[in-house]
Amino acid sequence: MPTPTTLPLSGVRIIEFASFVAGPSAGKALAQMGAEVIRVDPMGGNADVKRWPLSDRTGESLYWNSLNRGKRSVMLDVRSDVGRDLLLGLATAPGTDAGIVIDNAVGRPWFSYEALAARREDVIAVRVQGRADGRPAVDYTVNGAAGVADMTGPAYTDAPTNHVLPGWDFLCGQQVATAVLAALRRRDKTGHGANVEIALADTATAAVADLGWFTEAAERGDRARHGNHLYGSFGVDFATADGDRVMIVALTPRQWASIGIATGTTEVFAALAASLEADFTTDEGRYAHRGVIEAVLTPWFAQHSTVDVHTALSDAGVLWGPYRSASVVAADFEADAGIDPVLVGVDQPGIGDVISSSSPMRFDGEYSGSVPAVALGSDTAVVLGDVLGLDTAELDRLRAAGVIV
Amino acid sequence: MPTPTTLPLSGVRIIEFASFVAGPSAGKALAQMGAEVIRVDPMGGNADVKRWPLSDRTGESLYWNSLNRGKRSVMLDVRSDVGRDLLLGLATAPGTDAGIVIDNAVGRPWFSYEALAARREDVIAVRVQGRADGRPAVDYTVNGAAGVADMTGPAYTDAPTNHVLPGWDFLCGQQVATAVLAALRRRDKTGHGANVEIALADTATAAVADLGWFTEAAERGDRARHGNHLYGSFGVDFATADGDRVMIVALTPRQWASIGIATGTTEVFAALAASLEADFTTDEGRYAHRGVIEAVLTPWFAQHSTVDVHTALSDAGVLWGPYRSASVVAADFEADAGIDPVLVGVDQPGIGDVISSSSPMRFDGEYSGSVPAVALGSDTAVVLGDVLGLDTAELDRLRAAGVIV
Repeated sequence: MPTPTTLPLSGVRIIEFASFVAGPSAGKALAQMGAEVIRVDPMGGNADVKRWPLSDRTGESLYWNSLNRGKRSVMLDVRSDVGRDLLLGLATAPGTDAGIVIDNAVGRPWFSYEALAARREDVIAVRVQGRADGRPAVDYTVNGAAGVADMTGPAYTDAPTNHVLPGWDFLCGQQVATAVLAALRRRDKTGHGANVEIALADTATAAVADLGWFTEAAERGDRARHGNHLYGSFGVDFATADGDRVMIVALTPRQWASIGIATGTTEVFAALAASLEADFTTDEGRYAHRGVIEAVLTPWFAQHSTVDVHTALSDAGVLWGPYRSASVVAADFEADAGIDPVLVGVDQPGIGDVISSSSPMRFDGEYSGSVPAVALGSDTAVVLGDVLGLDTAELDRLRAAGVIV
Repeated sequence: MPTPTTLPLSGVRIIEFASFVAGPSAGKALAQMGAEVIRVDPMGGNADVKRWPLSDRTGESLYWNSLNRGKRSVMLDVRSDVGRDLLLGLATAPGTDAGIVIDNAVGRPWFSYEALAARREDVIAVRVQGRADGRPAVDYTVNGAAGVADMTGPAYTDAPTNHVLPGWDFLCGQQVATAVLAALRRRDKTGHGANVEIALADTATAAVADLGWFTEAAERGDRARHGNHLYGSFGVDFATADGDRVMIVALTPRQWASIGIATGTTEVFAALAASLEADFTTDEGRYAHRGVIEAVLTPWFAQHSTVDVHTALSDAGVLWGPYRSASVVAADFEADAGIDPVLVGVDQPGIGDVISSSSPMRFDGEYSGSVPAVALGSDTAVVLGDVLGLDTAELDRLRAAGVIV
């Protein structure tokens, strides 16, 4: 990583008391920009400490170790009053760059915004909820309700298709990171703290609304399922002679023309457009006739090797991308780290070599790099000393009382 | 919306010279937190000005009007030197809260970071790219390459399933918003500007790496497609007697127990666990036996009405959510705005009533609310006057030269 003093959030301290994806991904994003992120877990770890995938090598959670890189780790008995007091103390410690909390601890009155603000009036607390009214929800229960699962998947079935990637969690987590920084700026300027809540259900529903899709459905009902076709223009996947697949997209007239050049179909489409009285240079024309466009292009892909397809598409300036399974991404990384420059190899204690990643944000041309996750709770004593000023005797008493290990 | 002075980014001015989803969604998120976001478009609008869906009522883009709410709109002939000079002037105008640019104008040397920094040394420029090496890519061409399309969709086919929602665009956009605020904080503290780049391909690849999925694939190859089942625990959808679907999830022992209570299957699963020598209280046990768990639960859902299913699941504390198509979300909004509190009705000039949304971030308990998008270019003269101090005579000369309308 670059020198810490050059990182944009150097000096900022954030207490993360959260689990699963949204809150921890926010903490990770902030840590990658230089913040000191202290993740606090209950004794034995939070509910995500053994979340899949687990390493075949050692049984450790690849998931937990990925989402918690670059953070300090504190473990406290938060069922005890003393443990809760320590957590509240960490969360509300003095300093212009401290007093910032990320959590998803819905339904814990002792860790409410009011409880935090009673200790530090200008605390910044950003909380991930399931639903805005406090009801629980996770990525997988809000996705279907936002209208997207019904649109996704093969056109030949009516069954909804769930997403595999917890995309709402990631988006919500990034919203948490944004909210932290916006609130911090307001506090820097005005001295006011902030009580921010973000419900995962709202994250999903607002994003779909941002595309105009609910208004569209209110006007004309649900659109027909369109399978792998891009909606409202032309884009779909094709199989090469080797059985690999590529996605090609034409959002502009120039991108459309390049597909004809790459595949030698310019004249075919000119004749077809005349015969259909269609205009393939428009989004409407391409989308309306996506089926025949796909059919005309399919043989060219089927007759050419993957390498030849890639070369021809790139040479003609087609907007395209390959499909890769996760194991192909991993193999590509082993073969040539330049293929996915955001990926970074890390030697993770407890696991071994893992495929980690930088932040996708490159500040001044530099990737953040990556670091291992520390073992659960391994910074407890040091952090309680650094932040709360506890001395050896006090730490020993906490250990004896079972509040820390 | 709350009084502007209470909004966290009040006073911050951002120039957005971008199109499609990532850049404009970043500008929208910042505007919802109180920033003055000035979107600059070329004459006639950018390539996304007529992006689908279009309104059946008026032909206007529901998409464009959704992503550009709450921004000011400037239209300039950026093919002319004078127009480019005006855009560079807006982007690098003085002020501690100005000199911030979001763009995706890859391959325009006249709008490079260097060109901006030559006018204002501490400019903050955050640029969305396709790939980090400058090659073009869009959401739909990076998704397949990140490994996720191969995992998504029905287990009975090997064909990859594209996502419909441009999720990487949204995540990248939120990363842009985060980067803007992190860079602004660094500038406030140190006086340094920032040249930030974020490649959509990196956004996707880094997120999948954050879950540990590439390391998993490196260890044991690609996981089997698991259809609508949640990976590594229990969660899947069921059809009710009315043909509606619900998603239920059990990530914890308590959530698992509640499913048995709601559906009257506690004893069945106890006997089944004994017979299979399985432990359904663990993630491993539930995931390994997800097929039989699904089969045991299916009849209960099929025998109960949607209303009864919802009631029983909620009463027992099951983690669940309904599936809704976009038209059902729209109908729910018409019937009861409290069902999706983030949604907001807006009277959009040029279209009529639309279903818009607040920011999912609630600062101090308040939703941001929403406002209409202004017509393309309608703030041009006012902004050039406000920011660059152009007077009526100068504006008239620009109009006569065709640089503005």
